[in-house]
Amino acid sequence: MSLSMFRASIPVFTRQLASLSAILKKAEAHAEARKIDPSVFINARLAPDMFPLSRQVQSATDSAKGCGARLAGAEVPRYEDTETTFPELQARVAKTVAFLQSLGPELIDGSEERTIVLKLRGREVNFSGQNYLMNFALPNFFFHAVTAYGILRHNGVEIGKQDYLGSA
Amino acid sequence: MSLSMFRASIPVFTRQLASLSAILKKAEAHAEARKIDPSVFINARLAPDMFPLSRQVQSATDSAKGCGARLAGAEVPRYEDTETTFPELQARVAKTVAFLQSLGPELIDGSEERTIVLKLRGREVNFSGQNYLMNFALPNFFFHAVTAYGILRHNGVEIGKQDYLGSA
Repeated sequence: MSLSMFRASIPVFTRQLASLSAILKKAEAHAEARKIDPSVFINARLAPDMFPLSRQVQSATDSAKGCGARLAGAEVPRYEDTETTFPELQARVAKTVAFLQSLGPELIDGSEERTIVLKLRGREVNFSGQNYLMNFALPNFFFHAVTAYGILRHNGVEIGKQDYLGSA
Repeated sequence: MSLSMFRASIPVFTRQLASLSAILKKAEAHAEARKIDPSVFINARLAPDMFPLSRQVQSATDSAKGCGARLAGAEVPRYEDTETTFPELQARVAKTVAFLQSLGPELIDGSEERTIVLKLRGREVNFSGQNYLMNFALPNFFFHAVTAYGILRHNGVEIGKQDYLGSA
């Protein structure tokens, strides 16, 4: 079976979002066990001018839902970006996964040459579907997923590479 | 043109390694401008039990060369892991890119169902080529590339998301 646009997008996002959910679960439990206000983690950043954990999770889910929708030629779902607690972030991840799971191979496959237009820093950028996926959406998605992990690791949450990679 | 194993691997790695090289260049210039010993950055970590910058760069390049070689059915090049300076890390990135560029589509395409056997935490794991690429090699590669970025951002190097993403 040859590699398809579906295989290179939807299951990659849902798999990594499951890992992100598990990591957030461990962070929440860690906060509870140490009697640390969960908002300390939610608002933690790797640098003063980087986004906090909440926004990293919002951005990872935005990147995944945006990519899925655009490859499918569907409307990108709009979320309110109001999450400030672990349960709210979990709900956002869950609704993103549910949306992605609604996009079957019949909607995604064949999108290699679909024109994807993004507004990036005020100008329109045109991608082919496959360049959008491989050069923009996946690198961007992983950026936010890994940075969320890094923020929690930096703040002492006991997670490891295996939590990020998921089971092989 | 349908998505190919080549398109989803080699150009993704080489593109991201070019960004990593540019980021390392900025870090080196930053160290020089501020008269900070470059080894401060080379040895910086996000957590005491995470790998330092040098090892993140080694791991990102390992992940890329390992994936390219395994998909091509070629021997994985062995590097010595002795890099302790920015020029040495740059040389490692450059030789990885050169190796990847030697792997043309004719060697990578059609590797979707090639059996890839990895030793992970002491046990053998079997992947199909496409599962290896999408579920293991790319997530692992981005993990190290993003963590390298995060270490430098955390330590005040003036880089931004755009340096990571490269030009769209």
